[in-house]
Amino acid sequence: MGYNQDDSHSQLIENITKVYMQAELIIIGNELLNGKIKDKNIHYFSKFCFKNNLDLYQVQIIKDTKEALHNALDIAFKRSDFVLTTGGLGPTKDDQTKELLAQYFNKEINFSKRALEITQAHYKRGKREFNKETNLYPNIPDDFLPLSNPTGYAPGLLYKFEDKKILAATPGIPREFQTMLDEVVSPLLPTNNSFSKHIIIKTNRIAESKIFNELCPNLWEELQVFGEVSSLPHPLGVDIAVVINKPHDEDKVLSLIDKSKLKDHIWHIGADLLEEVIIKEATLKKLKIGFAESCTGGLCASRITDISGSSSVFWGSIISYSNEVKIRSLNVKEETLNHFGAVSAEVAKEMAVGALENMNLDIAITTTGIAGPGGGSKEKPVGTVGIGFATKEKSDSKIYHFSGNNNDREGFKFKFSQAALFKLLEVIRAYDS
Amino acid sequence: MGYNQDDSHSQLIENITKVYMQAELIIIGNELLNGKIKDKNIHYFSKFCFKNNLDLYQVQIIKDTKEALHNALDIAFKRSDFVLTTGGLGPTKDDQTKELLAQYFNKEINFSKRALEITQAHYKRGKREFNKETNLYPNIPDDFLPLSNPTGYAPGLLYKFEDKKILAATPGIPREFQTMLDEVVSPLLPTNNSFSKHIIIKTNRIAESKIFNELCPNLWEELQVFGEVSSLPHPLGVDIAVVINKPHDEDKVLSLIDKSKLKDHIWHIGADLLEEVIIKEATLKKLKIGFAESCTGGLCASRITDISGSSSVFWGSIISYSNEVKIRSLNVKEETLNHFGAVSAEVAKEMAVGALENMNLDIAITTTGIAGPGGGSKEKPVGTVGIGFATKEKSDSKIYHFSGNNNDREGFKFKFSQAALFKLLEVIRAYDS
Repeated sequence: MGYNQDDSHSQLIENITKVYMQAELIIIGNELLNGKIKDKNIHYFSKFCFKNNLDLYQVQIIKDTKEALHNALDIAFKRSDFVLTTGGLGPTKDDQTKELLAQYFNKEINFSKRALEITQAHYKRGKREFNKETNLYPNIPDDFLPLSNPTGYAPGLLYKFEDKKILAATPGIPREFQTMLDEVVSPLLPTNNSFSKHIIIKTNRIAESKIFNELCPNLWEELQVFGEVSSLPHPLGVDIAVVINKPHDEDKVLSLIDKSKLKDHIWHIGADLLEEVIIKEATLKKLKIGFAESCTGGLCASRITDISGSSSVFWGSIISYSNEVKIRSLNVKEETLNHFGAVSAEVAKEMAVGALENMNLDIAITTTGIAGPGGGSKEKPVGTVGIGFATKEKSDSKIYHFSGNNNDREGFKFKFSQAALFKLLEVIRAYDS
Repeated sequence: MGYNQDDSHSQLIENITKVYMQAELIIIGNELLNGKIKDKNIHYFSKFCFKNNLDLYQVQIIKDTKEALHNALDIAFKRSDFVLTTGGLGPTKDDQTKELLAQYFNKEINFSKRALEITQAHYKRGKREFNKETNLYPNIPDDFLPLSNPTGYAPGLLYKFEDKKILAATPGIPREFQTMLDEVVSPLLPTNNSFSKHIIIKTNRIAESKIFNELCPNLWEELQVFGEVSSLPHPLGVDIAVVINKPHDEDKVLSLIDKSKLKDHIWHIGADLLEEVIIKEATLKKLKIGFAESCTGGLCASRITDISGSSSVFWGSIISYSNEVKIRSLNVKEETLNHFGAVSAEVAKEMAVGALENMNLDIAITTTGIAGPGGGSKEKPVGTVGIGFATKEKSDSKIYHFSGNNNDREGFKFKFSQAALFKLLEVIRAYDS
């Protein structure tokens, strides 16, 4: 819908964010560009920036060549004061970051006693022997500060220049990257007391265009008064976010939302994940929850157990991928499987009743469906899923159809798990404890 | 270790890759930069490029402002012929990509009949009513080709200029992005018959520096003769990759590896995931495999069921997060739990025997550990895990200790699952069928 012809929206964002130190991330690694591996650092770094009042202006993923890194540094330092590179600090010959940074800043590489201590500390932690001859970790560019690496061998690097510009370099291994950010880089950043908070309004079962075109045509402008607004559609819902910059604006945003027509479509306000809301509300009601999963193959349980504290309410899940396990561990009747097929409302319901009894749960949620690419038919295409539930009082089930790319097995598994978790939240909220 | 002072390695890479069309990805979205959401498109796009003989030169994640997009386009088109932007084509006011692209190429935005048809097609698929008044999807920059969106409302865009430069724009929603790449963008790319293949040598239980400094000090140079070499350490192993450009080099690389001292540390050669190797080898031996998972909470099962074809060998998993489920569904003895604690070799073994019997498996693998941040003690710190296995002939278990960031619960779950899956592969390989 409507575009801001005059750029006023963009300018508003720029004005707000300019009060923070602007930051850049440069990720060095051919493996990320040629499809071999998946990045695991961007999201952690973007959350790190938000927490530390850094305005992350841009991320660049580049090849490990001189040309690529030097160009990326030129561009990043032209607009930002804090640039972090990650990757290329390891011991092999494609790890050229130290050398390329030294060239960029016209430094020589020399032995550093502090860097040696950092590397040796990790050899000690791992109880392994340090081999001085074949170990180039302690050699770093002159005038660079070596940074502790609490979970790895390679020291990080820090270099300050032109009074306020900061370059930091860390290894790219996610564990080392994350620990160094939190324990080593964070304390070195200038303190900043400005306030910034995401208010996230989470809706479901309503399309983005319907919200902003029909239901609440003025909502965007009304929210924009308080800060940057964005809208993010994803399977089963739209999240609307406002970044507020004054603590007392929170109540104003909430009361605006409370009076809007969107109210009935909101399932949660806050940055919490669906999994976190489930754990929180199940804990309040002292419920024992669990799953019986076929097509989601453990994803529902795994998502729930990603949350610390889940063990007080999450009892277990029976992954019954084969019919044999459906019969043996969930008491599903062979006739039901033969008559209706494994992907059916009837089987979803029997699985729920079986899981409730066998694991002694208060609420059981089940999934049985077709995640593709094979296994679909005209009546039950890829994307079909039966979601069932059972409590001591009641049990029921329903077939859902999701669209998507038939080869996107993981995508379908996620959508199915999302539907199952929403059902779980619904049953928790309806539960009289 | 040693750096290429003369840049010859970088130049070699540049020479090889210049035969492909060079590509760039620009991801537009404040939500990715302010920590609100996690990217799901980069890895898909990098694999897409590799498959389509595109050399992905750089990825930029940028804010949705005019300045950011116009700068990113300037830089990308200066060095590459194919640039794909993703994001900002939706119906809300932070979706400004069409407008900003029109400005960049000096075009007006006007109604397009073909774009209207694309949008209406999706309204029809969803059996929902198209509202012409409030719908700006059909308005696109002049001279741009609207692209079908098989799973969404917003048409993609394609623009050719200066004879061979191509700009494509797609929505950022992963499902729409992926389907459009495969079904719409791929057929529009110039065909290229050049050959390119990753040979990935997967090792475990040996450190990267040990491989290249002590065991095989000449391996890197020897491999480099055939193409770009890279080394990637991750929990439990190091992957060494060579990108070859001539089909008959594959045998030469394999025979080189076969003669090297690295041989005994290799668990697989190829791009397959550990999960895929497991499914393949279990299928060959016609085994029924399954898990009993405590600390991994379903992650082992979920990783295995991400693989299409897993249903022929993966029978099921019992997620016994609570002791009650360990006792009820896995026949673990209450005395064992009380005496040794849930995280113990004894419980891991009893879980394996129980899972084998209750699900009628050939091989059962189990996990019971402490993923943190809470639950650790001096004797059993966060990162401790018991891995057990059982076959009809034998059962055993062992305690492992992993280091890491105590708050990285998901990281520990992954490491635990990796150890369990390696154990599974080991037991499959030792299995006499």
